[in-house]
Amino acid sequence: MKRIAFLAVAVAGLAGIVAFSAPASGHADEPAVPIFGIKIYPGYRDWKLISVAHEEGNLNDIRAILGNDLAVKTYREGKLPFPDGSVIARIAWSYVPSDENNKVFGRGHSCVPGPAPEWYLQFMVKDSKKYASTGGWGYAQFDKDGKPADEAKHKTCFPCHVPAKPLDYVFTHYAP
Amino acid sequence: MKRIAFLAVAVAGLAGIVAFSAPASGHADEPAVPIFGIKIYPGYRDWKLISVAHEEGNLNDIRAILGNDLAVKTYREGKLPFPDGSVIARIAWSYVPSDENNKVFGRGHSCVPGPAPEWYLQFMVKDSKKYASTGGWGYAQFDKDGKPADEAKHKTCFPCHVPAKPLDYVFTHYAP
Repeated sequence: MKRIAFLAVAVAGLAGIVAFSAPASGHADEPAVPIFGIKIYPGYRDWKLISVAHEEGNLNDIRAILGNDLAVKTYREGKLPFPDGSVIARIAWSYVPSDENNKVFGRGHSCVPGPAPEWYLQFMVKDSKKYASTGGWGYAQFDKDGKPADEAKHKTCFPCHVPAKPLDYVFTHYAP
Repeated sequence: MKRIAFLAVAVAGLAGIVAFSAPASGHADEPAVPIFGIKIYPGYRDWKLISVAHEEGNLNDIRAILGNDLAVKTYREGKLPFPDGSVIARIAWSYVPSDENNKVFGRGHSCVPGPAPEWYLQFMVKDSKKYASTGGWGYAQFDKDGKPADEAKHKTCFPCHVPAKPLDYVFTHYAP
């Protein structure tokens, strides 16, 4: 009976992993970003929602911030710092008015995701040893075709995140 | 060996169900909305992201649209109409500038979710028989404390969604 239980648990564990990494929007064979060596996480588009935002000004995008299970659990429990293995994904779309919606609502613009900008997809990956010199986080940016941004761009990530040190270098708060 | 395999599959299946219905934000003991009789779906906050939006004007909110597995699968496959059992959740937060982010970015406002408005949480529930008179969808609105909106409010849902008939009465497009 012990062997049966063991097998069952092993298979259940496998099922959990499969469910977690299921339908992938990313592609494992895409190149890694410079400096941090991060690839697109398969299945990130299935991750849970952390929050949303609209960046005005020159970015002018609307974005969703998703997290893997460990990152979302950490947010919900409010126990910083994020443990190693936490990954946060940020998807940005250009910010466009919806003509369809505006016709119906008639109350100012309804703005929705448009085409993907150059900075479409970003990841923050917590690995306190590997990324010790950048606050324990690795950073990655890809365009919509999965092409990584260049080294110069990736050098700008950590300095910009330093003011967010009180939230373990993460800008986004969890939206309940 | 057959029994072992059966048990393993049964447990694996259970693990999948547990993973799907895990941490619930909703509460099953909350009241149902008028007309449509819909309660808050436990676990909706864990559903996959469909899209995001910002409504300007009198609503002035920023929102996320999530879907249960069936709704998201339907969106991704692009096969309308949505099958019975599809559920779409819309969470809205008041739209506020982030002072924290603005200090760092210096490029116009970074706007993020603020306090929950009265129209915090909505659901669209596909049941082509039960809701035949309203395009096959039931509608529900709750405030942040889980209190349903009144009957008058729920009478306005379907008429407003009629112009979205080409997308099976749903305004939101999937954001890839």
